[in-house]
Amino acid sequence: MAKDGKHRKSGIWSADAADVRELLRVPGGERIELAAFDARATPGGPQDKEAGLEATSVMADHLADLQERLFAASTAGDRRRILLVLQGMDTSGKGGTVKHVIGLFNPSGCRIRAFKAPTPEERRHDFLWRIKRALPEPGEIGIFDRSHYEDVLIARVRELAPSKEIANRYEQINRFEKSLTDDGVTVVKCFLHISYDQQRRRLLERLDNPDKHWKFNPGDIEERALWPAYQKAYEIALERCSPPDAPWYLIPADRKWYRNWAISRLLLEHLEALDPQYPKGDFDVEKARERLLRSG
Amino acid sequence: MAKDGKHRKSGIWSADAADVRELLRVPGGERIELAAFDARATPGGPQDKEAGLEATSVMADHLADLQERLFAASTAGDRRRILLVLQGMDTSGKGGTVKHVIGLFNPSGCRIRAFKAPTPEERRHDFLWRIKRALPEPGEIGIFDRSHYEDVLIARVRELAPSKEIANRYEQINRFEKSLTDDGVTVVKCFLHISYDQQRRRLLERLDNPDKHWKFNPGDIEERALWPAYQKAYEIALERCSPPDAPWYLIPADRKWYRNWAISRLLLEHLEALDPQYPKGDFDVEKARERLLRSG
Repeated sequence: MAKDGKHRKSGIWSADAADVRELLRVPGGERIELAAFDARATPGGPQDKEAGLEATSVMADHLADLQERLFAASTAGDRRRILLVLQGMDTSGKGGTVKHVIGLFNPSGCRIRAFKAPTPEERRHDFLWRIKRALPEPGEIGIFDRSHYEDVLIARVRELAPSKEIANRYEQINRFEKSLTDDGVTVVKCFLHISYDQQRRRLLERLDNPDKHWKFNPGDIEERALWPAYQKAYEIALERCSPPDAPWYLIPADRKWYRNWAISRLLLEHLEALDPQYPKGDFDVEKARERLLRSG
Repeated sequence: MAKDGKHRKSGIWSADAADVRELLRVPGGERIELAAFDARATPGGPQDKEAGLEATSVMADHLADLQERLFAASTAGDRRRILLVLQGMDTSGKGGTVKHVIGLFNPSGCRIRAFKAPTPEERRHDFLWRIKRALPEPGEIGIFDRSHYEDVLIARVRELAPSKEIANRYEQINRFEKSLTDDGVTVVKCFLHISYDQQRRRLLERLDNPDKHWKFNPGDIEERALWPAYQKAYEIALERCSPPDAPWYLIPADRKWYRNWAISRLLLEHLEALDPQYPKGDFDVEKARERLLRSG
């Protein structure tokens, strides 16, 4: 639940939503105040860890079955596919989501790409160039760990481009994502919303465990100092780039088990809505069976 | 076990091998007679399905942990990585291996590529061109569902290239794989060995289930008619391209649970031999902790 009631009018995290898609969807066109949303909330979901882990694992077979249907349909010309975009502050759980949620799927149908700071080659192109090269093929589930949104997030906070250029990117992104949805891509954008406190706890955990030092970069502390600027940059992106066909979902992510449940559930609802079907074979089954039986 | 004892001298499937790598390794340099190997065998492994599934799932945490170490090490400059090559007749279980074995790993560190008949663009290049573009990066586990070996298998059987050109490819492949091992790639090539009978059963299963018709192609029956030619082509590839540094492993694959166990176990043994270590952080941990605690 939102800490106060003022966001309920937009339906976000309102308990009477029809499904998780409706419950977590950012309406777009209005400013979201992230601080008003409790990152420890568990809207629409199981209420404790044990129930959350169980509810997520129960979805695994269903997810894998729908994924297989989606892939099978693509072999008969169905161009539909899913693109899951994961964004969030350091330690918000983008990598954990890939491990635990995407780990429920058949890896052969998943196309995963983690975007880092652009390479010199990538920098020579438009910011969407490297994105377009990493898109899922029909029948696949694409996963972006960070994405083109970095170009209105870190780029805005760190002033990596002229402000006018950044201002133009929101509309470019909307047009780009519209071209994707027009081409059969279901775009599922998840903002993993963690609290400032939770980030500190997770960074300290990394420091306390030598096996996790490789995940830690002293630069993470400088980024953390820019927390308010990043939250504002996210608020602007959520306001400007959440049209009905490619909305953002605001995922409370302080509880890892809820985050995994919610994103699994979101993918399940989208896959169910796609309702992909196994294609009928275009061959004579009886004849094929006879030939096989004759083959000894 | 081999049906007769004559292959034991080479150690293949001999019960006194030190580990599965030794047990299943094709020695190279001598002709393997595939028909002498029972595709229903379970060398070195659990003896029934229940025990096999259990023994495989027990490996999952260990595999994922070693994979994380391998990836972590790559962030500090370790170039090592694994390339799993899967080959075998139709229905031998290449796709099932990806689903059930690679599904045990964190998908973000796996780079999977299924090779189909070459596209017009691929055909304009050397047969290794498309292979080189799909290799795993340091720290990753690459998986090839089919590979450059198709160019000495179907290419040989279907005479898709002049025989002299095909004859040259074995040495080209050996040189190419040597360049990979020199660059830190552990090459694990698995030939999924199924029986002629088992292929018929699996093709019939696909025909009996309308949800599997999309996996069936009447052309599969024509390929099946060329079984002896394919077996011979495999025998030649196993003989010529199994040097000590990049050997083939002969995996009896009529029993899916054994196949999954054996390949999981092979990957585990290779990862254990690599013994990847978490890199030490190159920053002042205490100072970082203080800064974090001050950040509120």
